Amino acid sequence: MGIFSKDIKTMDDLFVHMLRDIYYAENQIVKSLPAMIDKASSPQLKKGLSNHLDETRDHVTRLEEVFRMIDTDVEGVDCPAIDGILKEANELVGDIDDAEVLDAAIIAAAQAVEHYEITRYGTLISWARVLGRDDCAKIFEETIEEEKAADETLTELAESKVNEAAAA
Amino acid sequence: MGIFSKDIKTMDDLFVHMLRDIYYAENQIVKSLPAMIDKASSPQLKKGLSNHLDETRDHVTRLEEVFRMIDTDVEGVDCPAIDGILKEANELVGDIDDAEVLDAAIIAAAQAVEHYEITRYGTLISWARVLGRDDCAKIFEETIEEEKAADETLTELAESKVNEAAAA
Repeated sequence: MGIFSKDIKTMDDLFVHMLRDIYYAENQIVKSLPAMIDKASSPQLKKGLSNHLDETRDHVTRLEEVFRMIDTDVEGVDCPAIDGILKEANELVGDIDDAEVLDAAIIAAAQAVEHYEITRYGTLISWARVLGRDDCAKIFEETIEEEKAADETLTELAESKVNEAAAA
Repeated sequence: MGIFSKDIKTMDDLFVHMLRDIYYAENQIVKSLPAMIDKASSPQLKKGLSNHLDETRDHVTRLEEVFRMIDTDVEGVDCPAIDGILKEANELVGDIDDAEVLDAAIIAAAQAVEHYEITRYGTLISWARVLGRDDCAKIFEETIEEEKAADETLTELAESKVNEAAAA
């Protein structure tokens, strides 16, 4: 966000801006997940993140569908939030040698990404509804359910296996 | 995070690192909230954010208590994630003239901050428990409940009043 925000005059503008923000974010996540998958040791964590990479590619496609539905060019805007979240994730997981501790850190990093997406899609759903675009809201709802499920899967994996192995 | 992460060898180190990360984040939030409160128009939004500023100051104090409980110096580490989230928030709300649209944007920005805190405290609770520090987990639980309540209050305000006024 940011560079175009001086042009936000209406709720429609704000909606498009946020759509471009999350479009940029989802694309950055697609680029970042393979390195995380590569660094993970737990087979379940690798599999969970790989599944979510596939889902994230679907989220990008769904956003492109929403751009078409509202007759707007498919494009992203800079999103310092996701850049910061991913920078922090990469710095953290880049420097831990112990495989189990690293897995615990990867889960924390991935959950910060999930929560960013959950808040943005939650906002987009509210805004789409008030703008009379329940059709767009419905698409965002599919995605937010997958983000929430991914977050819960990571919590379960952390609490059932990874954290205990890391603390041992 | 980042600059000290090469020193993370154990789960204890990771826990302290994350504690320093959220300590830095909470302090940055205390600095950023007054400008948001100032820019908000809705009296309910101003009041909600002001109440949360008071809570955020308590969260800083609670984190200092946890540092003392684990006999560790009270200090923060750079946290690119919260820096990015706040940069995006400030850029966005700095450039919107329409008061109602601005209120909708402020709510979205504040909810992104809440979700960052929710994910970090969720992680800290899990890690504290596995490290046998239920006493620390209990303190984080008090805070996470306030973060979740603040997020819900913002959603209710957006959906009951602000979004509709902004879209009108």
